[in-house]
Amino acid sequence: MTGQNTARSHVAVDWGTSSFRLWLIGDDGSVLAERRSDEGMTSAAGSGFAVVLDAHLAAIGAGADLPVIVCGMAGARQGWVEAGYLDTPAALSAIPEAAIAVPGTARDIRILPGLAQRDDQAPDVMRGEETQLLGAMADLGTAAWNVCMPGTHSKWVRAADGRVSGFSTFMTGELFDAISKHTILSHSVAEAGGGGSGAFAAAVVEAHADPALFTSRLFGLRAGQLLHGLSAADARARLSGLLIGMEIAGARAGSADGGIALVASGTLAALYQDAFAALGLDVSTIDADHAVRRGLAAAAKALWNR
Amino acid sequence: MTGQNTARSHVAVDWGTSSFRLWLIGDDGSVLAERRSDEGMTSAAGSGFAVVLDAHLAAIGAGADLPVIVCGMAGARQGWVEAGYLDTPAALSAIPEAAIAVPGTARDIRILPGLAQRDDQAPDVMRGEETQLLGAMADLGTAAWNVCMPGTHSKWVRAADGRVSGFSTFMTGELFDAISKHTILSHSVAEAGGGGSGAFAAAVVEAHADPALFTSRLFGLRAGQLLHGLSAADARARLSGLLIGMEIAGARAGSADGGIALVASGTLAALYQDAFAALGLDVSTIDADHAVRRGLAAAAKALWNR
Repeated sequence: MTGQNTARSHVAVDWGTSSFRLWLIGDDGSVLAERRSDEGMTSAAGSGFAVVLDAHLAAIGAGADLPVIVCGMAGARQGWVEAGYLDTPAALSAIPEAAIAVPGTARDIRILPGLAQRDDQAPDVMRGEETQLLGAMADLGTAAWNVCMPGTHSKWVRAADGRVSGFSTFMTGELFDAISKHTILSHSVAEAGGGGSGAFAAAVVEAHADPALFTSRLFGLRAGQLLHGLSAADARARLSGLLIGMEIAGARAGSADGGIALVASGTLAALYQDAFAALGLDVSTIDADHAVRRGLAAAAKALWNR
Repeated sequence: MTGQNTARSHVAVDWGTSSFRLWLIGDDGSVLAERRSDEGMTSAAGSGFAVVLDAHLAAIGAGADLPVIVCGMAGARQGWVEAGYLDTPAALSAIPEAAIAVPGTARDIRILPGLAQRDDQAPDVMRGEETQLLGAMADLGTAAWNVCMPGTHSKWVRAADGRVSGFSTFMTGELFDAISKHTILSHSVAEAGGGGSGAFAAAVVEAHADPALFTSRLFGLRAGQLLHGLSAADARARLSGLLIGMEIAGARAGSADGGIALVASGTLAALYQDAFAALGLDVSTIDADHAVRRGLAAAAKALWNR
């Protein structure tokens, strides 16, 4: 932590389904303190959102006049205070304008809205990623991009010049969990750990080329174990590769002109970089933590000019 | 039951992962008695395969000289007695020849082998469906067919003139269960019951046309509920349609010349018939129960000339 002498500007919170992250931001934009916990929406809905937030604010000694900007599932219908959705096509600058103030608190607490695509054929929603995107586009400039934000529900956003024209969600991470834990493949897929990167890359290429064979290639992990002694580590790498290869094929089919930007951190960033490399696709990577803090800071600037 | 005066020929057993079915067959081919239970391989592995079979044989008063022909998971490595696999390409007539006798029993009990496709790129196995196929091909004759046997693990077999050239397994039924019970869609998808047939047919066509968008369309069930009030019954019908549409697209991509034959019974037969109709594909349907009994009878004839 830096900046003992830096004045406090605001508190930024990324409140997801299963995780809570809070940063105390200085008026020079620096991070003065950070808090992370598993008190996501699911947990906080039981213990109380205000109780959870107050405990973290007390731990960093936040005065009552320090405002808080929040993005993520805290704004869902089943969250703290419903913050609604901005409809696409949407200007990213409209996100802070649509923030909802939490009522009944002395402190100024605002929750940012999600984005909704009210399309009969491809209805879609996001909540939290719009703030990552606001931060990422500050780095990406005004060019057209297909922005990939991987995770439990991977988001692919078509954005240019500060506007979102549309987006698609792929249930990649959640299907990985459901298939590896709740199907016959639970006997064939290792619980953790890295399989061969060759197995991963080959599966990415196969699924990208023939997405219709996805569920057949899944069964091939079981048959490959029975007939060829496919290892559990390689089966895990192949399962991941099949899902990510199919995701990229689907996203590219619906993509606009422009390059691919990857907003991700750590092992997930490395995994997707390997997948894009296997397909010979260029990608620009932006750290996801950096992006969400920058997006929250942009919202704080717009709301409070600080 | 018919045939009080018909002599007993043999007992036929279809022993699956989760179900046990037994028929007492007369020497004119008629069914003299039938038993069904949930004592599949998973259950019988605990209680003992011989114990389960003996109890059912006693219930129909089967004399010790009445032989028993068995297909299905009883012949798996984790089953009763491992019956191995015939490798593709395979003649269906070789199935009875490769039957394994259960050792240590006074009664003549034979278990039929499965089929294995020892292909590096598309390893695959089946156990039980080869006997359905043996019976179905007796009806289908010598022409070339793409035979669809839907279920937990749907099998598509390329067969002509009594020979299997290759096959593919699609995890359609198992993914339906895993996705509807173990993902966020458990909140959006009805637990049972028929959704609109229009919702089902539309999803079949969409997934068949753009299989790469499968996991995105899955998330669309959740978003459709949030944004458009998609009913839980229609979401269930769409989930089923997306999986079956993708299966048919994948199977057709790998299919040989020849028509499509559907080997299925009851609601599953009706569902796949609706899917093929939505895609404008002609299909010949053969009842699955009839097919497996006919396949077991053909094996009994080959083994014991009765």
